Amino acid sequence: MAAMAAPGAAAGGLSFNEDSSHFFTSRNGKRLTLQDVDGWVEQYAGTQVRELILNVNAMRTSYASKVWDPIWHGYDPNGPDDQPLMASLTPEGRKSARKWIHAAWQLNEDGIDLYARWIAQARKHKLSPWVSMRMNDIHNVDDEKAYIHSEFWRSHPEYRRVPYRFAGWPDRAFDYGRREVREYHLKLVRELAERYDFDGLELDWMRFGYHFRPGHEREGAELLTEFTAEVRRILDGQQKKRGHRIRLGARVASRPESALGLGMDAVTWAQRGLVDFLVITPFWATIEPDMPVEQWKALLKGTNVTLAAGLELLLRAHPGEKPYQKNSLETVRGAAAALLDRGVDRVYLFNYMDSETAIDQVADNARILREAGSLATLAGKPRRHVVTYADTWAPGEAQAIALPQSIAKGQWRAFRVPIGPAPGAGKAEVRLGVESADARDWKVLVNGEPCAFVSDRKPEKPHSPAPMFCFTAPLAALRRGYNAVEIEATAGGGRIVWVELALG
Amino acid sequence: MAAMAAPGAAAGGLSFNEDSSHFFTSRNGKRLTLQDVDGWVEQYAGTQVRELILNVNAMRTSYASKVWDPIWHGYDPNGPDDQPLMASLTPEGRKSARKWIHAAWQLNEDGIDLYARWIAQARKHKLSPWVSMRMNDIHNVDDEKAYIHSEFWRSHPEYRRVPYRFAGWPDRAFDYGRREVREYHLKLVRELAERYDFDGLELDWMRFGYHFRPGHEREGAELLTEFTAEVRRILDGQQKKRGHRIRLGARVASRPESALGLGMDAVTWAQRGLVDFLVITPFWATIEPDMPVEQWKALLKGTNVTLAAGLELLLRAHPGEKPYQKNSLETVRGAAAALLDRGVDRVYLFNYMDSETAIDQVADNARILREAGSLATLAGKPRRHVVTYADTWAPGEAQAIALPQSIAKGQWRAFRVPIGPAPGAGKAEVRLGVESADARDWKVLVNGEPCAFVSDRKPEKPHSPAPMFCFTAPLAALRRGYNAVEIEATAGGGRIVWVELALG
Repeated sequence: MAAMAAPGAAAGGLSFNEDSSHFFTSRNGKRLTLQDVDGWVEQYAGTQVRELILNVNAMRTSYASKVWDPIWHGYDPNGPDDQPLMASLTPEGRKSARKWIHAAWQLNEDGIDLYARWIAQARKHKLSPWVSMRMNDIHNVDDEKAYIHSEFWRSHPEYRRVPYRFAGWPDRAFDYGRREVREYHLKLVRELAERYDFDGLELDWMRFGYHFRPGHEREGAELLTEFTAEVRRILDGQQKKRGHRIRLGARVASRPESALGLGMDAVTWAQRGLVDFLVITPFWATIEPDMPVEQWKALLKGTNVTLAAGLELLLRAHPGEKPYQKNSLETVRGAAAALLDRGVDRVYLFNYMDSETAIDQVADNARILREAGSLATLAGKPRRHVVTYADTWAPGEAQAIALPQSIAKGQWRAFRVPIGPAPGAGKAEVRLGVESADARDWKVLVNGEPCAFVSDRKPEKPHSPAPMFCFTAPLAALRRGYNAVEIEATAGGGRIVWVELALG
Repeated sequence: MAAMAAPGAAAGGLSFNEDSSHFFTSRNGKRLTLQDVDGWVEQYAGTQVRELILNVNAMRTSYASKVWDPIWHGYDPNGPDDQPLMASLTPEGRKSARKWIHAAWQLNEDGIDLYARWIAQARKHKLSPWVSMRMNDIHNVDDEKAYIHSEFWRSHPEYRRVPYRFAGWPDRAFDYGRREVREYHLKLVRELAERYDFDGLELDWMRFGYHFRPGHEREGAELLTEFTAEVRRILDGQQKKRGHRIRLGARVASRPESALGLGMDAVTWAQRGLVDFLVITPFWATIEPDMPVEQWKALLKGTNVTLAAGLELLLRAHPGEKPYQKNSLETVRGAAAALLDRGVDRVYLFNYMDSETAIDQVADNARILREAGSLATLAGKPRRHVVTYADTWAPGEAQAIALPQSIAKGQWRAFRVPIGPAPGAGKAEVRLGVESADARDWKVLVNGEPCAFVSDRKPEKPHSPAPMFCFTAPLAALRRGYNAVEIEATAGGGRIVWVELALG
């Protein structure tokens, strides 16, 4: 195998994830043509996207699987919206679900295999086609009857990871401690490897991240490593037929300790040569610009793994923040610059899909595709570095979450903000969201240098729902990587809910 | 140098740290004889202690340094307690300080070099003698005039790391970003290497852990690595004269991310072969049985570093817990078992000194010295695994602290407790400290298996200041390593302040 070149192994660029429903639901009920299918790929040609990563499933597949239920399993195309498959939904939910179900069904009826076509088109446009398999998707499991679930899941409540309660979706995820569960998922891996000629297969362990009974993650980690080795063997078996190396990737929790605590022993997978593409990522609730890239790089030293930093679409400063907001061009630039500068090989976009489901300013999506993959294209452009948090932790793991922080008069608080390269020119601003205090007279320092209050206007979205206070930071004070923002509540205490360094 | 054997490189056993004041202050003003000096070493002979690690300084030295101020600098042995050196203290403080100052002065007057003698005696008793240098001790810096400070520190306020405030001792620590500060400390390293024939020198970066201006840790890390390389060169220069390898060690923060964020790039030190002994440790406020040993081991792979887990004397379940309590034999066993099982090479005792300053049950100290260094001697003995926290974080780093946790009726909370090897026999108990609730009817599970309420008696110290509730856990449910304790507040909410797994 050594003679086969691994496609796309060099550093820099974007990986782009397309989920298994968006394309269908976002085309507004139109009967999809080959032109529509090909057109979807074309928008990524000539951008910084290198891997086009096609997610083909949640609990069901969006293609005509012979081993799992396709999304249209049980669907009557001539039936009403309240037919049994969709009966458990609201009238509005039925309309939305039917878009996905019907469009996928129709495409198959029309003899178009979406993923086969996308893979071919991607190659034509010099994009590396991957398939991504969600390993434990649990959307809507509060509704046992929902159309989105597989019959296998529905008929085997005993295979779920937390049989003794239902406090949230993850409690009803599959328990990979069960041999039957692992076999069920390997079936789909085998079919995918047989059916599609992809450059790589991604195992998406972050949809949704919980795969074992609480407290059983240690033996779980050994099982997942063995599972990964089996997937690697399946891909090995296909390589001769395909005539090229087939890569194996995984999406895992953003911090090594949490990933291992969830049973994702990514470092062992890498060291054993089982995976050569690793995405570190939060789950969904917020983007995480401060992932510990240095630790990952040190742990992966000596392996051939391409390390990708997963960006999610939403941005929350803390878990309780409402309403939730999307990232903007400037906050994506901030996250990408910080993470690329810390040494990731790729910026990986998740939920940054086209049309109205992406970031609010649709035009900005095209810029993200052309800027966010390289420090060179990010240099000199306005960017925002917002303190957020990690949204996925192992069961029982102590959680490190910076905000909110209450502060009494005379007290100090410190935050650190990774900004990537220090800017050579322009303006820098510290922006605080503060509840219950007029913070204009607070003392604010960046790396020990005092900042001056400049305004309490709200910056563009995303911004704090709380009042915001902006302070000019001396440009010369900024440093590459982490910058310390220290705050003294000189003029009465309050509650800090947002901390940001904006460079413009 | 490869031909010189590194003393004590194999796994298992204890390292023992003796600070620079305890021996003097604890002998109650007695004029110390050679017999007293030798007797101190003898108590560690024949125990599991392998490295006897002799700390020789805070801001002053406890021996007659020619390059730093000895502790008796400015002392008039015939003067009154309120002489200038001790004038800033309370009358009680003066008496206590004078014990240290006078005993060290007297020993020197009597021609006894304590550390030279201890080093020789250690070798005689097959103990490996080390010297430990505290790199930034800041005891009592709220009192600028206190006897304990060096004239160098007193006369150079501009060398302190936070010139713009005084919110706590660490603000007045030396700033190692200053060349003059690094040079001042290298002077003592050179003297120590010249003066004493030790097996190893330890740089204690955890007294007190803060060495750079906030936000300047990145360039600080490069400076500390260069500093460590210079110390290694100094030791290299002594090896021929000594005729044996001289090891270099360091004490650093318990988690890789925090250590790096404080400027302690221990992984690089190890990979460059600069250090061969690394102690991961909390600072002081509590013992930390849940240090991420797996991460450290993975990061140190391929190096020759001996990895030691530092145990502190105190035990707090959370930062706000009062009054503070000491560990007991059983909680030390718990921490040692958990950490040894995760793969550390040594258990390192800090502040476990003899006499009244050690654990409450003095007799238990002797047992700790004979049990805590090996899983074989810990096996089958009662031990307690208490959830605590990490007490040292980089400036601005988000802090992961498990307790306290408020819980409303019907909610669930999870904790994880590393226990080392699963016990083959005996009893297991989950013990909760709970405020504002009668928790006897709460649902408690270990790794998914239900536990039964057994009593609300308080266990022996250390225990929670809050009411405690004990539940029997099925022995078969326990697993090696992490065990998940899940709690449902079925019968009214409260505040969980203590979580423990006791094995007996």
